[in-house]
Amino acid sequence: MNAYKQILVAVDLSGDSQRVCRQALEVANGNGASIFLLHVVEIIYQVSVASEPMFYPAFEDISQNEEELIKLSKAKMADLIRGLQTGENVRIESDVISGIPKAEILRIAEEKQTDLIVCGSHGRSGFELLLGSTANAILHHAPCDVLAVRTKKNTE
Amino acid sequence: MNAYKQILVAVDLSGDSQRVCRQALEVANGNGASIFLLHVVEIIYQVSVASEPMFYPAFEDISQNEEELIKLSKAKMADLIRGLQTGENVRIESDVISGIPKAEILRIAEEKQTDLIVCGSHGRSGFELLLGSTANAILHHAPCDVLAVRTKKNTE
Repeated sequence: MNAYKQILVAVDLSGDSQRVCRQALEVANGNGASIFLLHVVEIIYQVSVASEPMFYPAFEDISQNEEELIKLSKAKMADLIRGLQTGENVRIESDVISGIPKAEILRIAEEKQTDLIVCGSHGRSGFELLLGSTANAILHHAPCDVLAVRTKKNTE
Repeated sequence: MNAYKQILVAVDLSGDSQRVCRQALEVANGNGASIFLLHVVEIIYQVSVASEPMFYPAFEDISQNEEELIKLSKAKMADLIRGLQTGENVRIESDVISGIPKAEILRIAEEKQTDLIVCGSHGRSGFELLLGSTANAILHHAPCDVLAVRTKKNTE
């Protein structure tokens, strides 16, 4: 009755993604759940400032770069899925899109009527805390339950 | 291999605790997991300020009050456990202690070598966000995975 049926797994395609996926599969196993693996390529727009005396900021054309990143990520996603030992009763789909990760993860969760979002969660110090801001935003704004899989030990 | 075996469920003994526990049981079911239900009575020391012209703050003796709160919470915990339909293969223990909830939850998680902490997570607005600070602290400092069970819809 309370089993999770629609699970969205947000992966950054780092080395930790295997562990995050394995935990999602563990929760899904035997429930006839569907797992949707999502990677969001974060596009950071670079602003070039022309040399003096002109200070017009200009956005670089990054559309080509974006396409390459998505292609590369799709290949990594395929590798990740190949490496997973899925249960008999779990259906896996995936997608790679571009945008702001937390916004896209929440949008897709809503769209797919997800009942559990699984994401990696970093430790508490410095740069890792910064990276963990996606998990934090998801925790506060998710329309559903959230499983944060610890990818770095706090003692490290 | 990756199944959660030691699950710590942090409950506030509100009406939402049943739902939080049910999700924990769902994850535990069939894994031979142990569930430890923990409630932390939050002791807020009240400062009484004597009327003018004396401004000495005085801490009230709340030890008796604390004992009563723990007794009341233990009765509520027993009710909660009675109301749960546990799987055949799940062992449930519980405790009620006093202190700062996030600190005590993390301390007990460490002590019991917990591999999953389950807690309720409130919505994002106003007072609910404040209440959610325990879930937030747990997410950032937990030595293990965290399942945040949404107890209020964001749309409410």
